[in-house]
Amino acid sequence: MATLENVLATIDANQGAALDRLFALVSIPSISAIPGHFPDCEQAADWLVAQLQEIGFEARKAPTKGRPMVVGSAKGKNRDAPHVLFYGHYDVQPADPLELWKTPPFEPRLEDHPNGERIVGRGAADDKGQLMTFLEACRAYRAAGGLPCHVSVLFEGEEETGSPSLPAFLAENAKTLKSDLLLVCDTSMWDAKTPAITTMLRGLVMEEVIIHAANRDLHSGLYGGAAINPIRVLSRVLADLHDAHGAVTLPGFYEGVEELPEDVAQQWRELGFDGEAFLGDVGLSVPAGEKGRSALEMLWSRPTCDVNGIIGGYTGEGAKTVLPAIASAKVSFRLVGKQNPERIAQSFRAFVKQRLPADVKAEFRSLGGSPAFTLPMRGEVLKLARRALEAEWGKPAAIVGSGGSIPIVGAFKRELGMDALMVGFSLADDAIHSPNEKYDRASFHKGARSWARILAAFGQ
Amino acid sequence: MATLENVLATIDANQGAALDRLFALVSIPSISAIPGHFPDCEQAADWLVAQLQEIGFEARKAPTKGRPMVVGSAKGKNRDAPHVLFYGHYDVQPADPLELWKTPPFEPRLEDHPNGERIVGRGAADDKGQLMTFLEACRAYRAAGGLPCHVSVLFEGEEETGSPSLPAFLAENAKTLKSDLLLVCDTSMWDAKTPAITTMLRGLVMEEVIIHAANRDLHSGLYGGAAINPIRVLSRVLADLHDAHGAVTLPGFYEGVEELPEDVAQQWRELGFDGEAFLGDVGLSVPAGEKGRSALEMLWSRPTCDVNGIIGGYTGEGAKTVLPAIASAKVSFRLVGKQNPERIAQSFRAFVKQRLPADVKAEFRSLGGSPAFTLPMRGEVLKLARRALEAEWGKPAAIVGSGGSIPIVGAFKRELGMDALMVGFSLADDAIHSPNEKYDRASFHKGARSWARILAAFGQ
Repeated sequence: MATLENVLATIDANQGAALDRLFALVSIPSISAIPGHFPDCEQAADWLVAQLQEIGFEARKAPTKGRPMVVGSAKGKNRDAPHVLFYGHYDVQPADPLELWKTPPFEPRLEDHPNGERIVGRGAADDKGQLMTFLEACRAYRAAGGLPCHVSVLFEGEEETGSPSLPAFLAENAKTLKSDLLLVCDTSMWDAKTPAITTMLRGLVMEEVIIHAANRDLHSGLYGGAAINPIRVLSRVLADLHDAHGAVTLPGFYEGVEELPEDVAQQWRELGFDGEAFLGDVGLSVPAGEKGRSALEMLWSRPTCDVNGIIGGYTGEGAKTVLPAIASAKVSFRLVGKQNPERIAQSFRAFVKQRLPADVKAEFRSLGGSPAFTLPMRGEVLKLARRALEAEWGKPAAIVGSGGSIPIVGAFKRELGMDALMVGFSLADDAIHSPNEKYDRASFHKGARSWARILAAFGQ
Repeated sequence: MATLENVLATIDANQGAALDRLFALVSIPSISAIPGHFPDCEQAADWLVAQLQEIGFEARKAPTKGRPMVVGSAKGKNRDAPHVLFYGHYDVQPADPLELWKTPPFEPRLEDHPNGERIVGRGAADDKGQLMTFLEACRAYRAAGGLPCHVSVLFEGEEETGSPSLPAFLAENAKTLKSDLLLVCDTSMWDAKTPAITTMLRGLVMEEVIIHAANRDLHSGLYGGAAINPIRVLSRVLADLHDAHGAVTLPGFYEGVEELPEDVAQQWRELGFDGEAFLGDVGLSVPAGEKGRSALEMLWSRPTCDVNGIIGGYTGEGAKTVLPAIASAKVSFRLVGKQNPERIAQSFRAFVKQRLPADVKAEFRSLGGSPAFTLPMRGEVLKLARRALEAEWGKPAAIVGSGGSIPIVGAFKRELGMDALMVGFSLADDAIHSPNEKYDRASFHKGARSWARILAAFGQ
């Protein structure tokens, strides 16, 4: 069996080839939200299957109603060690607005930076770079003599669109996928020097609402005053979603939301999170959520409502005096605790309908949803992982929450009863979902080394 | 000198050639709001200069800071007759959404319809078809022996973007343009059988507001709750613009708005306007303006506020959990009476600024404006025009208001002290500014005959 030292040395010796592999994956524009990129999603899945086979996994592309899954497995030397299932996603966010990228989003490159080299490209961090840290650790084990424990992998291609095919896929493949522990690499470090294990994830409900008024666009001179304007109706609905104190006004919205246990609250205070600096990095200064809450609570343990997109009428250059026939918005809710996604979607739809004046109709589209997730704070897995991360980074791993959602974590809990260990190496300035997304070269390299250490700890 | 009978017979005998000429003009996509179409605007202006020269006018293209003007003049037989200046505009609205057009917007065609043939294309009515009714009347006079009075023309190419260059052009060319009366053909009939003279026009203020929050698009999971969302801010501002009774809430907005004189109100009641049928044609039923006002008041004599366009965040297919950096809206106000456009634009900007939370900035762009206009209700010009129209249509002309704006009417009043006689042959179902814009063939033909009769009346 490979010694950990050999595995780490192998990772160190093959950094150039590892970068080439990541660049190859980032070059594939596998955007799951845009049908024109569905063939690219297939290509990314095929590429991952080939990678897995190259490092000794049995692997295949598994079709779904949407983008395909990639599944694979490899035996480890220690049969008594826990069998782990690693999850990652090969799909990425749309790259728009393209004009804000310094270089094309799907032509990855290394960029020099005072804090160290960066890998730049859409998906460099979320989630291609993160996913490849684990594969590079497995590759090194293969080269150095074999994995320490049984490892399965599941890569999906619909994470950025709410993982619509995953729950059914898990249910149908429960036998082959059910393992002792889920490993997820889609979260962040606490800071560039401090690793983190994420034990709380917010859930998500995404709804699109389309407000229909007249049966065609109208001239605002000929009809203005007498014809109802759907943008006005939509603005009223969206404005009503928050009260003057930043709380969400949907009836029943806060059902299942609990106050933070005091020990967790205490640990969070000790993290010394600088809300002003966090917001200052993106040009803001004042936490905009519920009054009386800390910024970290707003981000990790409080639910939110945000409009992610709105469009209606004429939006080109100059003026057009049009009264549009429709206006639409994409609205999402971040959930915590035991908030029920279906009930919140229903409450939102009822909320909109109650605010429709005569002649106006609302059409709704569900864009997906998942409940929040909390990992038990005490246990062997957490202890082993913290120790392994401390050995790599020289500092204890922070135990943190995350404002983002990883719907699959809830799905695994629900469908297979599995808990997730979430360890990731992304940084706050990685600009994921934004132009010029990047992943630090150190995150990529030490991320692979971290997984090598964690697998070694499980295999002992 | 041509007799009116000869002129009318000439118009009747040349309908096919007249249609060909209108089709040639509609084929030029002279969209003034889109820089890519500026060369088409030049082409439309050149085409009109050639037309004018062909029918005996001295004509030229006159440059401005924006799209060029076309100016022309021709002498008439009767030197004691009033010198008239005819105004029209050769620019058109953008054609989007293109997918709703049954045939390409700039490939005009004749369409059969139970109510008679229709000319279909962007600008078929607004204003190319209307403008050509006057040129066809002048052409027939030329063929039949000469115009009855001095006629000048001014065609502009920026009407659909608020006529930014016109006031300065009028001021600089006051000597050559100043005439006894302005003729404008950019308004509607009362119905397909009843001609109308428009004596009230609403003014217009157009503002674009861009709300800036974070310095880049953010991930709504990582920042949602703590980072302010500019769409939320914009929605609040737009929702606040109307109160629960449909009135506009801008401070000072109703200054200069007067109640309708009782004799005008009485005449409007006698028109028998069917608000339900008017709205029913576009799929609506309830007048959406100020409570307690008739639909006709809402359209003709009350000011409005409408959002003509809004955009922010991700508006493509599917979902993107983004917290956008900016959101923007185009907001317009229709003005009546003595409302002051500048003061209303200032009030709007102050209104927005007062509603900005910490970290949020608003950027404003003026997209143009003009005050409302009211023509004196009694006078010789109105009497002659009503009689001429009655002779053509067999019914007295209705004296009406218009919800739309024709900024140049105010500009001529202000710069040159000229009053405008507004006669047009458009119909409510012409779908101007919308897909599948049309102009009835009868509007085009009898419109030309109507102008022939009006010119004859002035020349006597």
